[in-house]
Amino acid sequence: MNEFTIPYVRTQECEVSFFEEIFPMFEAMREEFVRRGGMVVVDEHVHELYREKIERTFAGLPICAVQAGEKSKSKETLFEIVEKMAAAGLERRSVLVGLGGGVVCDLAGLAASLYMRGVEYILAPTTLLAQADAGIGGKTAVNFYGTKNLIGSFYAPSKVIVGEEFLSTLKKRELRCGLGEIIKCGVLYPPFFETLYESRAKLFDIEFLKGLVPHVAEFKAEIVKNDPFDRRGAREKLNLGHTTAHAIEEELGLSHGESVLCGLWIESRIARQNFRCDELFLDRLETLCEAALEGKKWEEAKGSSLFSVVRDKKNSDGKVCMIVPVAAGKTERLTLSLARYQEAVLKALEE
Amino acid sequence: MNEFTIPYVRTQECEVSFFEEIFPMFEAMREEFVRRGGMVVVDEHVHELYREKIERTFAGLPICAVQAGEKSKSKETLFEIVEKMAAAGLERRSVLVGLGGGVVCDLAGLAASLYMRGVEYILAPTTLLAQADAGIGGKTAVNFYGTKNLIGSFYAPSKVIVGEEFLSTLKKRELRCGLGEIIKCGVLYPPFFETLYESRAKLFDIEFLKGLVPHVAEFKAEIVKNDPFDRRGAREKLNLGHTTAHAIEEELGLSHGESVLCGLWIESRIARQNFRCDELFLDRLETLCEAALEGKKWEEAKGSSLFSVVRDKKNSDGKVCMIVPVAAGKTERLTLSLARYQEAVLKALEE
Repeated sequence: MNEFTIPYVRTQECEVSFFEEIFPMFEAMREEFVRRGGMVVVDEHVHELYREKIERTFAGLPICAVQAGEKSKSKETLFEIVEKMAAAGLERRSVLVGLGGGVVCDLAGLAASLYMRGVEYILAPTTLLAQADAGIGGKTAVNFYGTKNLIGSFYAPSKVIVGEEFLSTLKKRELRCGLGEIIKCGVLYPPFFETLYESRAKLFDIEFLKGLVPHVAEFKAEIVKNDPFDRRGAREKLNLGHTTAHAIEEELGLSHGESVLCGLWIESRIARQNFRCDELFLDRLETLCEAALEGKKWEEAKGSSLFSVVRDKKNSDGKVCMIVPVAAGKTERLTLSLARYQEAVLKALEE
Repeated sequence: MNEFTIPYVRTQECEVSFFEEIFPMFEAMREEFVRRGGMVVVDEHVHELYREKIERTFAGLPICAVQAGEKSKSKETLFEIVEKMAAAGLERRSVLVGLGGGVVCDLAGLAASLYMRGVEYILAPTTLLAQADAGIGGKTAVNFYGTKNLIGSFYAPSKVIVGEEFLSTLKKRELRCGLGEIIKCGVLYPPFFETLYESRAKLFDIEFLKGLVPHVAEFKAEIVKNDPFDRRGAREKLNLGHTTAHAIEEELGLSHGESVLCGLWIESRIARQNFRCDELFLDRLETLCEAALEGKKWEEAKGSSLFSVVRDKKNSDGKVCMIVPVAAGKTERLTLSLARYQEAVLKALEE
């Protein structure tokens, strides 16, 4: 009997940089893209808004516009992109550019990771959410079998190029989406929380947000560095508020960011029921979530079948597992049976 | 302007081991598989032949039988497998087992790499080709857009468990498939070549092949170790004979292994036209290929449209790029225009 071991060590590096305007950056790279072969995947909404700039900047490269929204995070859209890459004759040395929000970042990343077992890709996230969170971290995914992100890969872009310019054209709802993840980071990193709480009247002020983005992105990157493949638990705390958020997103159809704000608010209250918490901090957190939600209500949840099904891929043994906020920079892991979780949510909503 | 870099270092290890019989090995692991959640992907042909053993060994685990043959290397079959994994409730800590030839190894590997961004998988290759070659190396793939292996990933199994028992139930054609890659390794590693050439009368002798498999697998593993992600060119020489082989496989419908034997034979002759070669070695190589082909002819190629289209993902700029044998342990890279390549093939076939 014979035996041997094959080691595999893969090293990737992702350079994240921030600019007022990104199109000049890409224009400087165009010749290289054309030489190596390239394609641009763009959110159709961004394509419409920046059509002239995009077509000038990426002249000579095929542009694949993807419908905005979570519905596009499907295997069908994924294979549309891959098919266009093949039709355009992309090779292993080619480059894919993803220009859009989290959906485009996830799709472009997965397409790049699969095409010829991996080609280089560059992300230019355009939403507050993608700039501060979704574009950072090297996770790619599409939804499948009714489950969020069931199919995907860990595959880092070579570059993330963040452009301030896009924030100015975002709608309030899109800003709110980003605020969900930004406030979540605030819970994990107290200096952010102070800034956010003190400036809670300016949460939708573009100049304020422009200044915030690089710091939140760098904070996310630090956590990712410690657990790039989400195996050591270091990244687990990024799921703060997300168990309830995913349920809200699926059942009530709120956007991801709005759902995260609701999830944080509800799980803050559940935390109080189960742990000795810093009550003042949680008061402020709930106030901050309310300020970002601007009166958006989730009362429909009460009495609905919302929490009868909490599907989250991180759960096992049929238990509901949450990461809840308990104090500045401090979270706890809470595991409840489905029945106990439902009770806790209803109690949180009644208070 | 702000800037930072995120490093990603991923380490995987693949343990390859060889046994007379593998089912007892898996039986010992069954309890763990059931506890963690697991599924078995099996070639339907292997499933039929070993049905009783498989169902006893993997009792309590869902079994997903996949039609044998290259046609199954499709995104449709891939998603059938992933859907069954989801239906069976597999989680991130679960395990996928792939039991079959190269097609099953490639499919199971890709499904495992994508499901929840990667679950553990174990391969039990059953064909000579998969035991000596396809199961070793951490490459996964399906065909797409008419191109072999266009979609895939680098994702290593945690274990490759090789069972001698399967060789006894292989048909001659399947043995020939493996011989293609084994003889290819012989060109790269002279001591193998000597053994193969001296034993060319025993090429289809199961006992002879059983002894050979661990050595060929280990040789392949050594090359993989030096270039696990096929970026440094070290793995390039494994494409020896494959440019022509892929064309033959696509256009004449020979099996992969038969095509590799033909490809080696033809590219050996093309090598003589273009380089100063060890003529005696190439004589012996061609003799060995003929012995493995047992009179199977590729004359249909002559004058056919076979070589008017040579699509191979490694080519660029419309040139045909080959790795050709020139002496024991020595290959050369040869790049020809399509017209020159076609001429060279026709001349090789006429000689």
